[in-house]
Amino acid sequence: MVSKNDSGKTYRNECTGNALATVKKHSEEQDLTLFGSCFCPFVQRVWISFEYLQIPYKYYEVDPYKKPKDLLEVSPKGLVPGLKLNNFHPPRALNESTVILEYINDLAMNTNGRSLLPPITNPYARALVRLQCDHVNRSLVPSFYRYLQAQDSTAQIDQGKEFHQSIEGLVQLLDRAENEIVRSSGPVSGEGERKALAVGLGLWIPESEDLGLIDVMVGPWLHRASNVLKHYRGFELPRGEKFDRWIDKLFNHPNFASTCNTEDLYLDSYERYAFNRPNTSQVADAVNSGRGLP
Amino acid sequence: MVSKNDSGKTYRNECTGNALATVKKHSEEQDLTLFGSCFCPFVQRVWISFEYLQIPYKYYEVDPYKKPKDLLEVSPKGLVPGLKLNNFHPPRALNESTVILEYINDLAMNTNGRSLLPPITNPYARALVRLQCDHVNRSLVPSFYRYLQAQDSTAQIDQGKEFHQSIEGLVQLLDRAENEIVRSSGPVSGEGERKALAVGLGLWIPESEDLGLIDVMVGPWLHRASNVLKHYRGFELPRGEKFDRWIDKLFNHPNFASTCNTEDLYLDSYERYAFNRPNTSQVADAVNSGRGLP
Repeated sequence: MVSKNDSGKTYRNECTGNALATVKKHSEEQDLTLFGSCFCPFVQRVWISFEYLQIPYKYYEVDPYKKPKDLLEVSPKGLVPGLKLNNFHPPRALNESTVILEYINDLAMNTNGRSLLPPITNPYARALVRLQCDHVNRSLVPSFYRYLQAQDSTAQIDQGKEFHQSIEGLVQLLDRAENEIVRSSGPVSGEGERKALAVGLGLWIPESEDLGLIDVMVGPWLHRASNVLKHYRGFELPRGEKFDRWIDKLFNHPNFASTCNTEDLYLDSYERYAFNRPNTSQVADAVNSGRGLP
Repeated sequence: MVSKNDSGKTYRNECTGNALATVKKHSEEQDLTLFGSCFCPFVQRVWISFEYLQIPYKYYEVDPYKKPKDLLEVSPKGLVPGLKLNNFHPPRALNESTVILEYINDLAMNTNGRSLLPPITNPYARALVRLQCDHVNRSLVPSFYRYLQAQDSTAQIDQGKEFHQSIEGLVQLLDRAENEIVRSSGPVSGEGERKALAVGLGLWIPESEDLGLIDVMVGPWLHRASNVLKHYRGFELPRGEKFDRWIDKLFNHPNFASTCNTEDLYLDSYERYAFNRPNTSQVADAVNSGRGLP
């Protein structure tokens, strides 16, 4: 059912469901504070990574549209996610989801050895993952917003096709990583060796049960495609045995699922985008004016 | 002197000056082949890095607008740079300048220990560098093309201001890295310790004589700003003691200078952009249609 009328709902500012339970578990002071907003996919990237990498953190809900002073201190544009490093004088902070992701991955490498990337001893596997992430950031994510904000039916059809193609482009890159790293790395002696080669390549690889950088980077938008785009645009994710298995593993992975809200929160929070209301967000404005995302 | 008339010059397909000498030194077969085009700043990023990281490579000039078959095999969109890894069966290849950069940096870490990034033991310094690079890729580089392709004088003034602001934004991020890492890292006992803290932060840091990732990431556009934008738009880089010293160190660094052509090559090659001729390039088309760079 595609919603036809703007009911005037607005974004939420408190998590629900699994995400709320996770917030409650992470409400005590820690060295790192994640400034987040419950509906924000860029925040969810970082949040999933904190969970997967087992780095202690406090989750702190902020309203990025009201630009509270403490958010502006950690993120100059007032965008979430922001990360505050509490144990430094003068204070330190980071912003930009991709930068924070790499930062906490480095922290984990230095402390518990966990990582979302293939090991540095396999630079080509790392590069294939980075190609996937580059595609997500520069094609799939902007395409998601153009589709959701498109108002007339021709634009919706065109943008829907582009979004679909962008997912297909990612699937090709995922297949490539599996083929070039796991399948063609010389004679592989058994399941154990295949598993070792798949490290950091993510859940697309049948042997892997561990999140990889690409799962974290794209998961929040695929999840919103499965509820927000389905509701407002009648969109269906591509089908296929491999794709279905991947989505199933991803959405049900405990570190992913624990950062997901109930569906109503997403539907309410994205109605502003779906009807392209003025002043929806910096992201929406950038899409409307043909600029790169902020 | 701002050029007012389109003289119909087109891009070159052979290096000149220092760059030509470097091509000749790297014309023998190697494990890695860099598919490049003499005028392309994305290629220059990778080229400088090969020189600085001391990774053996062959430079192979291609015409990206004619999309030769061997280029399409390494770079699906037919864009340069492309990287062919010759010692693999089935063949391997990479594209996207940022992905190739990280790949050869990983290779260097694994072989000779050289790196454009701060060490992994300093995740915060690495994150500040990644913030700088993110700003360059998403603000400064697109702004360069919008400015160069702007045709009417109001648009040129507006875009010139934006480009200038984007450089100022980078300067703030560079100052921040110097302040937060080198100046405020507790009591520093002397010049040696300051130098150690500055590793990977690049030439902006007074103590550093080593290229950092940000130098490589932004240098090619600052260089083209100093000749192409100066010639076609009357643009002048910002002035100031620190900025001037940085630009001077950067443009004269041997690994940067050895990949630079003579000025006439840049002026000829960018005339198409400066008059926004149709079908100039995928980059120019993306800028004209308000899409992210390909």
